[in-house]
Amino acid sequence: MHRSIEGVHLSDDQRLDWLRLIRSDNVGPCTFRSLVNHYGGAHRALAALPDLARRGGASGPARVCSRQEAERELTAARSLGVALVALGESDYPRRLMMIDDAPPLLAVRGSPAVFGLPIVAIVGARNASAAGIRFAERLARDLGAAGFAVASGLARGVDAAAHRGSLASGTIAVLAGGQDHIYPREHADLADAVAADGALISEMPLGWEPRARDFPRRNRLISGLAVGIVVVEAARRSGSLITARFALEQGREVFAVPGSPLDPRAEGTNGLIKQGAIMVTEASDVIAALEPILGRGLDLPAREPEPPSSADVEPGDDERARIVSLLSPTPAGLDDLVRLSQNTPAIVRTVLLELEIAGRLERHGGGLVSLV
Amino acid sequence: MHRSIEGVHLSDDQRLDWLRLIRSDNVGPCTFRSLVNHYGGAHRALAALPDLARRGGASGPARVCSRQEAERELTAARSLGVALVALGESDYPRRLMMIDDAPPLLAVRGSPAVFGLPIVAIVGARNASAAGIRFAERLARDLGAAGFAVASGLARGVDAAAHRGSLASGTIAVLAGGQDHIYPREHADLADAVAADGALISEMPLGWEPRARDFPRRNRLISGLAVGIVVVEAARRSGSLITARFALEQGREVFAVPGSPLDPRAEGTNGLIKQGAIMVTEASDVIAALEPILGRGLDLPAREPEPPSSADVEPGDDERARIVSLLSPTPAGLDDLVRLSQNTPAIVRTVLLELEIAGRLERHGGGLVSLV
Repeated sequence: MHRSIEGVHLSDDQRLDWLRLIRSDNVGPCTFRSLVNHYGGAHRALAALPDLARRGGASGPARVCSRQEAERELTAARSLGVALVALGESDYPRRLMMIDDAPPLLAVRGSPAVFGLPIVAIVGARNASAAGIRFAERLARDLGAAGFAVASGLARGVDAAAHRGSLASGTIAVLAGGQDHIYPREHADLADAVAADGALISEMPLGWEPRARDFPRRNRLISGLAVGIVVVEAARRSGSLITARFALEQGREVFAVPGSPLDPRAEGTNGLIKQGAIMVTEASDVIAALEPILGRGLDLPAREPEPPSSADVEPGDDERARIVSLLSPTPAGLDDLVRLSQNTPAIVRTVLLELEIAGRLERHGGGLVSLV
Repeated sequence: MHRSIEGVHLSDDQRLDWLRLIRSDNVGPCTFRSLVNHYGGAHRALAALPDLARRGGASGPARVCSRQEAERELTAARSLGVALVALGESDYPRRLMMIDDAPPLLAVRGSPAVFGLPIVAIVGARNASAAGIRFAERLARDLGAAGFAVASGLARGVDAAAHRGSLASGTIAVLAGGQDHIYPREHADLADAVAADGALISEMPLGWEPRARDFPRRNRLISGLAVGIVVVEAARRSGSLITARFALEQGREVFAVPGSPLDPRAEGTNGLIKQGAIMVTEASDVIAALEPILGRGLDLPAREPEPPSSADVEPGDDERARIVSLLSPTPAGLDDLVRLSQNTPAIVRTVLLELEIAGRLERHGGGLVSLV
């Protein structure tokens, strides 16, 4: 039996449960998905959290977001004109649904209609050159005229220019903090202008002041929204290259704007082109490469939810101890854990979930896990 | 029976005949080759020229370079330290031998030892930016350090920077005029510096002041010398792009240095990269791409000369008239001429040679010919 990921609409109670679950300690988008699959819904997952954390060996009681807290956030969001859109609902950006760690709830301010356009991300250096800024703004305007929405990160330099160039045609700013913490502060007016015809989105709670580590995490949403990303100016080891790496992992097209080899702000983009990114000197370079992809349409996969699991995959204490003993700070794979512990995959996954909720597990790429 | 193109050494008399033949009216490098093949040597070709021109229907007597004129050029060249090196002689640049229209005689000033190095050409805009000039000089120096000689056109901007960067390691300037007409004049000192450890080459006679149309023709020698060419800055429709096109036709590697899309001097180079040229931001990009080619060594083809042809391929008047009647200002192919005139290829080629010497034939790419 297949169920489409689309066409979902949460009841008020369900939305509250989703919000409580994703705002609870040690629950990220991937864990959220595992929990909902494992317990057959957010409500039952919430009820199971304290027990999971205890069994996973949490040092103290893991904080579960209270109904009150979640209601406060929903009320505050509503008063700011921010909607909390759930993964699968019609206002959720369609391509973003398809990434592994898509946020279960997205705080959206502005007009979600912009998500209906094909989206290109334009990112680049904060300390961009005058030429880089001029180019980003022109590119955004030209892509807007061709029917694309432009996504970026509201940063100084290239990001701001990309938004400015696409204010009229549709622009999306992805925030690293909460909707009430625009960063940098001086872009508050730009944010208002973005919200007028486009949208600002965030996966973080209201009141969240963005920390340095929130920006790379945010960058996966910029690329995840888009069918392709254009890097305009980027030094070596810059944030824009992180976004480009996310884009590759997510199967998005990567474009880069060339620059002089003597300009450090072009090192990153020239490097991307050497590695196979498509060179962009004008909007038509982007459009020509994306048209075939858009022509194919966007086939959202119909996902088969795992069968709501039951108590009979509840691990016994011996099984749990055996699996934990196999773990270490060195990443190990699920297959190895199943084989070495001689347990079923379901049992191993449950133990890992417990450890995760207890804050003792770290997930790496390729399905590897390690003890914190 | 195969004869290698290498290891030739002309006697003084032969060199004089070669010089007379290539300096005669309507004899370019390709016609020179046809004539020498047809008549089995320059001496007999010279003797045949007036007759050929008459039969080809020349409007007046075609000027044949006299022995006296040729002797004067040889003497003047010697007094300037300029050697006239013949195609196939050991001092002739090896890769240049292999292009279709290699000059039969090359005027060389300086040290032909530089031709023994693998050669990379660096070309670009005369009105280059400061960054472009700095990059060209650095690239030339780095390639020199890696054992390459650098060829260029002694022009202002990128060319001069490329020569300056490689003066110590080996540099080759290809002139559009005669060896006694350095262009631009203010580069006379640079030319002397080039000659000190490197070489200046020209296919034009002493005394030849370069005209605009001589530069594209010269550019084929810059690319022809080299295993690859690097275009540093080039606007659209610039001379450097002509050199790049020659390079492609000659099977040379084409490299280009990226630049900002807003810089008109990068339009040509960015365009080349989009079309498949290898992007260069440092010398190692060039070296990495050329090493495999150089590793293969340079297999000079052993050419089979056409058998010295004889009077029995002399066309009769009817045959000649029939072939001429098939020609028009619209280019036609040799195969069609053979088929439609019901003559042998040898007969058709002879008639075409006559027309060429008479100044009535133009050769196009792909073996096509038309009446002037």
